[in-house]
Amino acid sequence: MRRDIYDEDHEDFRTSVRGFLERSVIPNLDTYAENRAFPRELWLEAGAQGLLGLQIPEEYGGAGTDDYRFTAVVGEEFTGLNAALGSCWGIHADTVAPYLITLLTDAQKKRWLPGVASGEILTAIGMTEPSGGSDLAALKTTAVRDGDGWVLNGSKTFITNGYSADLIVVAARTSPEKKARGITLFAVDATAEGFSRGRKLDKVGQAESDTAELFFENVRLTDDEVIGEVDHGFIHMMEHLPQERLGSAVGNLAHAKQILVETLQYTKERQAFGHNIGSFQHNKFLLAEMFTQVDVAQAYVDKCVLAHTQGELTAIDAAKAKWWTSQTQSEVLDHCVQLHGGYGFMTEYRVARAWRDARVTKIWAGSNEIMKELIGRDLGL
Amino acid sequence: MRRDIYDEDHEDFRTSVRGFLERSVIPNLDTYAENRAFPRELWLEAGAQGLLGLQIPEEYGGAGTDDYRFTAVVGEEFTGLNAALGSCWGIHADTVAPYLITLLTDAQKKRWLPGVASGEILTAIGMTEPSGGSDLAALKTTAVRDGDGWVLNGSKTFITNGYSADLIVVAARTSPEKKARGITLFAVDATAEGFSRGRKLDKVGQAESDTAELFFENVRLTDDEVIGEVDHGFIHMMEHLPQERLGSAVGNLAHAKQILVETLQYTKERQAFGHNIGSFQHNKFLLAEMFTQVDVAQAYVDKCVLAHTQGELTAIDAAKAKWWTSQTQSEVLDHCVQLHGGYGFMTEYRVARAWRDARVTKIWAGSNEIMKELIGRDLGL
Amino acid sequence: MRRDIYDEDHEDFRTSVRGFLERSVIPNLDTYAENRAFPRELWLEAGAQGLLGLQIPEEYGGAGTDDYRFTAVVGEEFTGLNAALGSCWGIHADTVAPYLITLLTDAQKKRWLPGVASGEILTAIGMTEPSGGSDLAALKTTAVRDGDGWVLNGSKTFITNGYSADLIVVAARTSPEKKARGITLFAVDATAEGFSRGRKLDKVGQAESDTAELFFENVRLTDDEVIGEVDHGFIHMMEHLPQERLGSAVGNLAHAKQILVETLQYTKERQAFGHNIGSFQHNKFLLAEMFTQVDVAQAYVDKCVLAHTQGELTAIDAAKAKWWTSQTQSEVLDHCVQLHGGYGFMTEYRVARAWRDARVTKIWAGSNEIMKELIGRDLGL
Amino acid sequence: MRRDIYDEDHEDFRTSVRGFLERSVIPNLDTYAENRAFPRELWLEAGAQGLLGLQIPEEYGGAGTDDYRFTAVVGEEFTGLNAALGSCWGIHADTVAPYLITLLTDAQKKRWLPGVASGEILTAIGMTEPSGGSDLAALKTTAVRDGDGWVLNGSKTFITNGYSADLIVVAARTSPEKKARGITLFAVDATAEGFSRGRKLDKVGQAESDTAELFFENVRLTDDEVIGEVDHGFIHMMEHLPQERLGSAVGNLAHAKQILVETLQYTKERQAFGHNIGSFQHNKFLLAEMFTQVDVAQAYVDKCVLAHTQGELTAIDAAKAKWWTSQTQSEVLDHCVQLHGGYGFMTEYRVARAWRDARVTKIWAGSNEIMKELIGRDLGL
Repeated sequence: MRRDIYDEDHEDFRTSVRGFLERSVIPNLDTYAENRAFPRELWLEAGAQGLLGLQIPEEYGGAGTDDYRFTAVVGEEFTGLNAALGSCWGIHADTVAPYLITLLTDAQKKRWLPGVASGEILTAIGMTEPSGGSDLAALKTTAVRDGDGWVLNGSKTFITNGYSADLIVVAARTSPEKKARGITLFAVDATAEGFSRGRKLDKVGQAESDTAELFFENVRLTDDEVIGEVDHGFIHMMEHLPQERLGSAVGNLAHAKQILVETLQYTKERQAFGHNIGSFQHNKFLLAEMFTQVDVAQAYVDKCVLAHTQGELTAIDAAKAKWWTSQTQSEVLDHCVQLHGGYGFMTEYRVARAWRDARVTKIWAGSNEIMKELIGRDLGL
Repeated sequence: MRRDIYDEDHEDFRTSVRGFLERSVIPNLDTYAENRAFPRELWLEAGAQGLLGLQIPEEYGGAGTDDYRFTAVVGEEFTGLNAALGSCWGIHADTVAPYLITLLTDAQKKRWLPGVASGEILTAIGMTEPSGGSDLAALKTTAVRDGDGWVLNGSKTFITNGYSADLIVVAARTSPEKKARGITLFAVDATAEGFSRGRKLDKVGQAESDTAELFFENVRLTDDEVIGEVDHGFIHMMEHLPQERLGSAVGNLAHAKQILVETLQYTKERQAFGHNIGSFQHNKFLLAEMFTQVDVAQAYVDKCVLAHTQGELTAIDAAKAKWWTSQTQSEVLDHCVQLHGGYGFMTEYRVARAWRDARVTKIWAGSNEIMKELIGRDLGL
Repeated sequence: MRRDIYDEDHEDFRTSVRGFLERSVIPNLDTYAENRAFPRELWLEAGAQGLLGLQIPEEYGGAGTDDYRFTAVVGEEFTGLNAALGSCWGIHADTVAPYLITLLTDAQKKRWLPGVASGEILTAIGMTEPSGGSDLAALKTTAVRDGDGWVLNGSKTFITNGYSADLIVVAARTSPEKKARGITLFAVDATAEGFSRGRKLDKVGQAESDTAELFFENVRLTDDEVIGEVDHGFIHMMEHLPQERLGSAVGNLAHAKQILVETLQYTKERQAFGHNIGSFQHNKFLLAEMFTQVDVAQAYVDKCVLAHTQGELTAIDAAKAKWWTSQTQSEVLDHCVQLHGGYGFMTEYRVARAWRDARVTKIWAGSNEIMKELIGRDLGL
Repeated sequence: MRRDIYDEDHEDFRTSVRGFLERSVIPNLDTYAENRAFPRELWLEAGAQGLLGLQIPEEYGGAGTDDYRFTAVVGEEFTGLNAALGSCWGIHADTVAPYLITLLTDAQKKRWLPGVASGEILTAIGMTEPSGGSDLAALKTTAVRDGDGWVLNGSKTFITNGYSADLIVVAARTSPEKKARGITLFAVDATAEGFSRGRKLDKVGQAESDTAELFFENVRLTDDEVIGEVDHGFIHMMEHLPQERLGSAVGNLAHAKQILVETLQYTKERQAFGHNIGSFQHNKFLLAEMFTQVDVAQAYVDKCVLAHTQGELTAIDAAKAKWWTSQTQSEVLDHCVQLHGGYGFMTEYRVARAWRDARVTKIWAGSNEIMKELIGRDLGL
């Protein structure tokens, strides 16, 4: 069924995003994977193309749109690329930027937003800690008041863009006795004294994304580096997590759909026992099931995107979209590997890489179990 | 997430439908089940209430709306009732009526449509045959030209409303050599000589629906009883099956959702080991999963309903909606039974009945396997 | 793969069991279903045939075998019949009898065992209560010491054989303050004053099994009616539940396998689109999967049967066998219905009835959720 | 439940295998992974330890046992290691060796078996071709009679041990017109002129296994290099595939079980929200389900191992064991990754590596779809 949430403006924009990918990204994909990083010039080009600051006000160098569909278009195209670009861009432009846009003072905006929009300042966000996982109430990183500033100590792990980020939004405990309600967000400049990074983590997939562990040892911060209100970090995060989850959902599904379409093509070309393998009834039904599964999920995600554009997306809608699409993605890609036979196990095949890359989406952005916990609570359970 | 396809008019209409159910139907549900039939006065009341002729032109006693959402509202409310009313009404008002509305001559319309709208003429449709199942090309019922009329011989089975219908749309082979392209539709009056009915079939569920086998032994028909064009029956059916499947999908999901909501309530009240059983994490996650599953499917079905209202629903969209919702319904209801423990196996519990009633939806209206075959072909496989 | 746990003696015995079924049971199946009960003469014949007292010592009229495989043979054949006979027999001969054999005094054995073996005394067991489900610690039925006897008050529900049993083993709270450790088992004669039965429960399936609610209103009991030790009822039950669960597992699988074999045959005969429906690859793979699933489960159940024969079956082994086989049975039978198309929804087809009958096995004998709880605890969780 | 197919001899042998692994293999696992190969000295040590020639007659340097359980013990321990050692060893000692043992002439045995047993001759088997996958009838590699010898041309792909093997059993078409019945097996020495290897394939998992593409360009072979009978290659393969599939099944399950046990331990240690994560009911039930699933599959595989030891394993039994265990392994490992949260996506965690390694088992050794096709045919479909 025709998707109906995008109008001509969005589709024109999609065409330009594809042009950017074909011109500036696709020719270098192997290099990125080998280096396990995207180079700075890629971000600068994306910034110049207007793809990093869609939600950033025009006065700070962005496009200033509050139509989330433009962001969704980039998310779909970047994840459809089947590299980690969607993830890295998503953290920067769809996860961190909204915190900055909504919570910064004017002075802070002037300081950081232009660079975020241009790609000169690459961002990351540090919530997860080695010991704590999804449990924000157990946060161990602390920022202790010291004179008119703060001293930050602790570490964060699984940080996408962690190895290359210039600016990291860090959640730290400022009021130890207040549990979740005693957390503050800080902007940490990567040049700050006491800040260091561990090695790039060696992940199952998403090779190009430079995930790293981050260390803060007596990093001194001023009040100008507080994001939002002191002790309101948890609330700030709760307010921004739905968009992050929606962004994940958009990408999960676009990724699955892209590989599914490629797999369909493969099954029409690959021969076995004298027939296209797609013509075997088992495979035909499987493909029919997967296309249905993806279309059904797309209807829901599209509805969420539209709701978010209208300011009506709830945390529960987003949680549903996040877990359902990552589960869908995981099931679809596993079948797509199988349809490729032995080639599905060879890294050079896009489907193999897709399968590895996708494994994380049931885990991150709030694990699927956390999503179900949230939904269950909302049901009154 | 708020559903957004219905406006105030539809919701007002829904209120009136519910009023009808509460007034005229719910008090008699046990009687219907016991009699394994809905009485004629129920259909007359439904007709008087305007629930049978929504799509029938006003000049023939209907409401003449081409907004399919009004039909969908009735479908949702009737299946939510958790009796076979949705099925019986669906065959009459959502499956057979469209054939009559689009294919009849003016004279035929005058003859039958007012009764269909008022409930005086209850309808059924006879496609499936004992030996053939979903394979229309294997149709054995024949209508042989005889003078300026036809002689109909054969039998049909699994006919919903079959025991009580006054008018049956029958697919018969008129050109034996042309396979699927040699089928014609006829309107058979239940008083016709040579027409007889078998016993009401004893089904696993949907007790009130009077499913029967129908026999045609030298039934004489005139050209005035041909529906649409001679030898075009297959095409006529192909054109109308999408709406039937969409109607099934609407009902499947409304039914599952209704029982799921009731089950949620049950798990909040039922105690075990000192807690509401809904509070056990296994159950909580399960309920979270099911509410997600239903919401996701609803987004797709709603999109289909809207597309159909706009004349854009394809046969493939409808096939996807049909199989996906019946699968969803089946999974959800099985879990709902389990959440009721031993009570889930007791007929007096609504969930037990729901589980039995729902088993047929993966089979009828084109089995789910047929749906996957159609979707697979559409994928070029 | 050839099953290897049965030797020639067991297979000869199986032949005799089948002879009994063919002679005395199969001709009357419709009558039993209509009456929603098995008649007493059936039990007497089964007793005469030696099928009720396999585990009962010879001196009390039984066969006195401690080779559980003979019991398993009866369980397989009786459930393969596809009527509730397996369930009713199982409660009597495989669940209640072991309590009596192991816990009764010699005087009590003399009083009851000969009748249990002959079928003159039909038994039931009353654990489950309307409010408590699987939670024995919440048992509300009480037996209060009164002089040198007891006064029993309370009710039990979902009691298989409840409507026709002559002797009911009832779990009652004797020490209210001791929770699970304050429960005692009693033998209640159905002629006791104060004992009454509710109506036969109208169940989703297993029509012939006369499931009922039981009421105890000031039923006076003597010490001669205590089974085992006072306040040790919970321990007695824990000791006997594994065999009940193994017996369920044996039956679940035999039932699924029987219907699967019949369904395979059906798919070889039923034609659609010019072919046997079993030859369609989707169906062929599905049948291949189900035969694998059943064979794999059979290997485990057989291993459990052998372990039990050797006195080595643990409660955890039995819990695994119980939930796994009921899940297998449920999945297999749902597919078998689907393979029958519309006929799968008609009560007269064995598969339809099998599907309905089987729904309870995930619920009873300790719900599958309780099984997983037990297994999880055993893992140290 | 206690496994019962191994006696004291087997368990003593297991202890010695473990000793070998701890001594000679585990300390070097990182090096093997880095080099993407096992070094020759490892094979020589394994040979010296008696682990390569279990089935090879003593006169040719092997242990000469026809008790397959010793082989199964090695398979379990080697795959439990969670590196590709099980796969590489399996091809050499459990797949290729049996062809040689059963099909070679005495002269050939003298020539090759001692080296196979000692590890001086590492073997591989070349069936799969780039274009043909599992379809042996489509084999394109040809061996054309030329004088009293043969000229081999073609290529093979996905060849485990392909990069390092000294001797490759190659299936080639010798009678083009006879389809599957015109295939002959040849032993190709890796030093033969015209033989070359492609690069090591970059796979999703199993890094240490040196999978490669092999090329044969006018490789001259003598009759002394024919294995078995000319044109009987297909039959030879059909006879040996069951053992290869059983070996796969043994390894699949041992691997899944090993990681499951480690994951259980992890969930007892890892804390979240103030509790061990294994104590959350969702996780507890999931672990209970997985331990059941593994135990059930183990019963079947053990039964197959015993049957094979007794010469009674059928091709269908093996096909069932192969697909069922690889499906089980895949499901279990995916859940184990999820239970590890973000760490499950980090290569350094054993579970991450296990998940990647295991993906191939649903594909190789005859894809699961081929297994279902075989089973379906055996059902008469």
